[in-house]
Amino acid sequence: MRILVIGGNGMLGHSVVEKLRALGHEVVVGGRHNADVDVDISSPESIREMYEAVPNLDHVISTAGQTTAMPLADMKPEDNDLSVQSKLLGQVNLVLIGQHYLKDNGSFTLTTGVKKDDPIAGGASAAMANGGITAFVKSAAIDLERGLRINSISPNIVEESFEQQKEIFMGFTPVPLSKVSDAFVKSVVGKQTGQEYKIYS
Amino acid sequence: MRILVIGGNGMLGHSVVEKLRALGHEVVVGGRHNADVDVDISSPESIREMYEAVPNLDHVISTAGQTTAMPLADMKPEDNDLSVQSKLLGQVNLVLIGQHYLKDNGSFTLTTGVKKDDPIAGGASAAMANGGITAFVKSAAIDLERGLRINSISPNIVEESFEQQKEIFMGFTPVPLSKVSDAFVKSVVGKQTGQEYKIYS
Repeated sequence: MRILVIGGNGMLGHSVVEKLRALGHEVVVGGRHNADVDVDISSPESIREMYEAVPNLDHVISTAGQTTAMPLADMKPEDNDLSVQSKLLGQVNLVLIGQHYLKDNGSFTLTTGVKKDDPIAGGASAAMANGGITAFVKSAAIDLERGLRINSISPNIVEESFEQQKEIFMGFTPVPLSKVSDAFVKSVVGKQTGQEYKIYS
Repeated sequence: MRILVIGGNGMLGHSVVEKLRALGHEVVVGGRHNADVDVDISSPESIREMYEAVPNLDHVISTAGQTTAMPLADMKPEDNDLSVQSKLLGQVNLVLIGQHYLKDNGSFTLTTGVKKDDPIAGGASAAMANGGITAFVKSAAIDLERGLRINSISPNIVEESFEQQKEIFMGFTPVPLSKVSDAFVKSVVGKQTGQEYKIYS
């Protein structure tokens, strides 16, 4: 299968890329910089250019999407824009645009995160984006045509990045990165659709 | 208590207004037209003007918010704007802006809907908005200051509007409107926060 992993240069994306290549799949890495194909998912036009540049895709994985982290008391409407345009609409638009490019029986796998289910201080904007993606995926799954599938992965903080983020995730028990990337493989090579895989323990 | 009900001229909002008034509360009705205070929640500036015009509020209820309903195959990124700007960010901005206006120990109660949990054709955009609100509420609750609370209500289709919408909700068992408006009363007069009340049966 020919699989595009957007965010494939990041820690999580790279782990997914390695597992898919080990299974013999052809993987194209997408990202904002220094990728096989550069894409800014917050721009629908950039997404269109990406799909035109990488034809004949079976599957698309997004481990991309930026969010705002700040105390609610300080958050103004415009502070929310990054989460909306990048993590939420960026991933939604990968599907709205990509549904016309993927091959029959392909799939989309999007990324959310534990904050929506287990809130942390300053996490409301990210939670909003994550909750929007989760519900979009469940609903889009029944509307997608040509056998296209869609799932989302909600990872807990991972062991490999816990040290840098331990202040904001104090008291969380991190999970191995490998468990999270396994879920992406299951979404792509399996047959399920409309699912959310929560990798919390 | 002094309570603003945005969307209070609609069927659901009106039912909430009547119950709150019967309990002796002072209710101000907000809406796009012909309300005690006119507001377009898709505009942060309009929201600010509304809060300036209606001072000394204890509680804010939103039964407002528009969404796009269309087949996913036809949906372009821009078709999603209504759901994003109105139902999702309109309600989020009622909180981001309103947190600085409400009296201590006040509350916000927002509205989502069953489509995010029980998808219907053409419902992905609405589901996205509803899922975003649900997660935002859960997370915002731990960040709000001065004793402010926040909850969301996710209603099923109600008996009173089932006839007009029975084609898209075919096979759903509608619930009495009164059960849904009860949940808004519970959110306002109760002490819970960060909750989602699903009124599905």
